[in-house]
Amino acid sequence: MKGSADSSGSDEAREIRLIRYAEGRSIGEADDVLAAEEPLEIRVEGRPISVVMRTPGHDRELAAGFLLTEGVIKSTKDLFDITSCIDPGTAGEGNAVDVALTHPDSFDFEKLTRHVFTSSSCGICSKASIDAVMKRRKPLHDAMRVKARTLLALPQRLARKQDTFKSTGGLHACALFDAAGKLLALREDVGRHNALDKLLGWALLEKRTPLHGHIALLSGRASFEMMQKAHAGGIAVVAAISAPSSLAVEFAREAEQTLVGFLRGRSMNVYAGAERITR
Amino acid sequence: MKGSADSSGSDEAREIRLIRYAEGRSIGEADDVLAAEEPLEIRVEGRPISVVMRTPGHDRELAAGFLLTEGVIKSTKDLFDITSCIDPGTAGEGNAVDVALTHPDSFDFEKLTRHVFTSSSCGICSKASIDAVMKRRKPLHDAMRVKARTLLALPQRLARKQDTFKSTGGLHACALFDAAGKLLALREDVGRHNALDKLLGWALLEKRTPLHGHIALLSGRASFEMMQKAHAGGIAVVAAISAPSSLAVEFAREAEQTLVGFLRGRSMNVYAGAERITR
Repeated sequence: MKGSADSSGSDEAREIRLIRYAEGRSIGEADDVLAAEEPLEIRVEGRPISVVMRTPGHDRELAAGFLLTEGVIKSTKDLFDITSCIDPGTAGEGNAVDVALTHPDSFDFEKLTRHVFTSSSCGICSKASIDAVMKRRKPLHDAMRVKARTLLALPQRLARKQDTFKSTGGLHACALFDAAGKLLALREDVGRHNALDKLLGWALLEKRTPLHGHIALLSGRASFEMMQKAHAGGIAVVAAISAPSSLAVEFAREAEQTLVGFLRGRSMNVYAGAERITR
Repeated sequence: MKGSADSSGSDEAREIRLIRYAEGRSIGEADDVLAAEEPLEIRVEGRPISVVMRTPGHDRELAAGFLLTEGVIKSTKDLFDITSCIDPGTAGEGNAVDVALTHPDSFDFEKLTRHVFTSSSCGICSKASIDAVMKRRKPLHDAMRVKARTLLALPQRLARKQDTFKSTGGLHACALFDAAGKLLALREDVGRHNALDKLLGWALLEKRTPLHGHIALLSGRASFEMMQKAHAGGIAVVAAISAPSSLAVEFAREAEQTLVGFLRGRSMNVYAGAERITR
């Protein structure tokens, strides 16, 4: 294949402003560095086959590795070129790569699109599919308030109930609390998207959706897709034990959700919607 | 919708036999409890729309939550019923659920299958799609050997290089080592599948695939999909800082890969392929 330099990976982190809380009260604003998250559309011969939520950088490698692990290519002999696409109108420049194959005629597009993760890809064009990913963020109107102390107490309540994690160390958990901090439901799964889907499915089957006045606690990190799922369930306050991604914060701010990260010990960071948090 | 009891979630953990190592040598066999992982095919009106790798239990909730967060349904009014399918021939009973909609005519099947994660779903029938997920495990013939002490030293070498994680706390890392423990490449990403795809894409573009005689180190957990990706790159030894899932172990044993978990401090667990590990 033709050679071209890969991106340097210098976009891997983003600086963001937040409010720090300790012992139940705000201790002021601070800057934090978050892992960058942006959608990448992978195209083969100009046709979109997948949108993955990734950290920018090494995008040609990501496309090559994705096609290798999905069984589309076996070696560099199958690759003619991988180019970064700069389309006006897509969410951010360089968020699409196009893979040209050495033998494009032997590529079964229909078979591949049925086999790969097509996560929110519209299958028509980059603009439509990435925009489809990004646009589902109608502001949530929820005037709920939650005390900082209530939030700080949630991780312990989760840990006490997380039975399977304790024995295996291998599960993600999502828990639903009311605004007073009462645990309503907890789901664990090897996949964190599944744990949240199970929690929201429970709420839906219990006829509790949309979940106004509730808090979702995530045992791990908060990504764009986790925020979007919580949003689909109507959850205004999302708190994560670990870090949020840059796009999770961006989504929360536009969707008017409250996003808390690094909720550990006696402190937490508030990245969006601090007006819902009271002393 | 019609009511029916959800599964209890009692299948969330699996007992498995392993070999423990400490200070560079085996300290004998032991039993460990791992988080269960199995494929679930979600069908709408009898047509498969997605296969998700999940922990068994609460499958009806998972299907309901998945359809809610993908925008297919809004409330229980849109659901007629969710039933567990028991098909002879599929990988494990109860690994498919079928969602009947109140207004099936308003459901755009083609639009949905383009929008959701279709992870390895063949789009035709449960047997074909789940079998397609499970069958890509041709044994890897790699006579490489690696010293236990070499493996125990890898996490420190990874940590020293993990720059973006240090600043953000929000990235997964995958690193490639040779059998002597020399770090060849490291990739970080908000998505752990992406981190491994980038690493394998690097190797492919460098014309190093298939990666005989190499070790992949994962900063987090080892799932079925991570093992399958490593297998596609030809990697015989996979080591994870955290826990493997039940299906990751099953896959490694059938694919003749070596799988190391809980590689921390001065000890590790070997779940498969211990013959490659020497003193």
